[in-house]
Amino acid sequence: MSEKQESLLGTRTICQIAVVVHDIEKSSRAYAAVFGMDVPEWFMTDPGNEIGMTYLGKPSDARAKLAFFHMENITLELIEPVGGPSSWQEALDTKGEGVHHIAFNVTDTAGRVKALADQGIEMIHQGGDPATGQYTYVDASKQLGLVIEMLEGY
Amino acid sequence: MSEKQESLLGTRTICQIAVVVHDIEKSSRAYAAVFGMDVPEWFMTDPGNEIGMTYLGKPSDARAKLAFFHMENITLELIEPVGGPSSWQEALDTKGEGVHHIAFNVTDTAGRVKALADQGIEMIHQGGDPATGQYTYVDASKQLGLVIEMLEGY
Repeated sequence: MSEKQESLLGTRTICQIAVVVHDIEKSSRAYAAVFGMDVPEWFMTDPGNEIGMTYLGKPSDARAKLAFFHMENITLELIEPVGGPSSWQEALDTKGEGVHHIAFNVTDTAGRVKALADQGIEMIHQGGDPATGQYTYVDASKQLGLVIEMLEGY
Repeated sequence: MSEKQESLLGTRTICQIAVVVHDIEKSSRAYAAVFGMDVPEWFMTDPGNEIGMTYLGKPSDARAKLAFFHMENITLELIEPVGGPSSWQEALDTKGEGVHHIAFNVTDTAGRVKALADQGIEMIHQGGDPATGQYTYVDASKQLGLVIEMLEGY
């Protein structure tokens, strides 16, 4: 008898769908018009070098402008990359505007990174600290056609 | 005083995130392993020419293999395009595996297609009939970085 299967993320609730864009103000106005919502304020993330950001194993000082649309069952996040190498900038440069990742709230990010690596799904981009808020991207594009973000401690 | 804004889709609930893949069986096994779920049966859609499918204004006999993973708050759909021109095949050919669209359950598809066209968001791909089940894709890639699917009558 097989043990009950568990999600390698500890959850099956997708909390965000994130889209990289060239101009967050222009995109925010378009989202607001289509979904009948107010245009949200965007905010700028802390510089990567202040939050221990790494991208492909190297420190990065990238930042991003973020805006959030709270849909009924999930949040749509807009990301405009600003300066420095990041998975956001790389996606925008190589594929243009589009979905960058789907996100999950997790605990034990370090353990999950290990379990995902056992499936060939490698960490590519991380910033912050689990105690105060950490995001971690793993590249599952070969396995799932997706980048997955794990959010811990927010 | 401004009127309360309405979503052009009549809803802000995203029911599906869909990913185009090369091999639905291989991808289904990978999704099942990551999310700790059973591998679902895939099924083949009816041929496009039997359900009045159009793609970029022309009839198409494209089909697709579909598989569904019911997450807690949303469904992940895998799509393997099979034969004939379609937005699924085009996305796979030009961008590789990745998110194809996000979907909404709607009423009055025809009216919504019109309202979206007023925003420059054009219908690209449609199949079926609203009475028995119809899907309609609109290309919002310039406005939202997304293709949106409207589902009616399923």
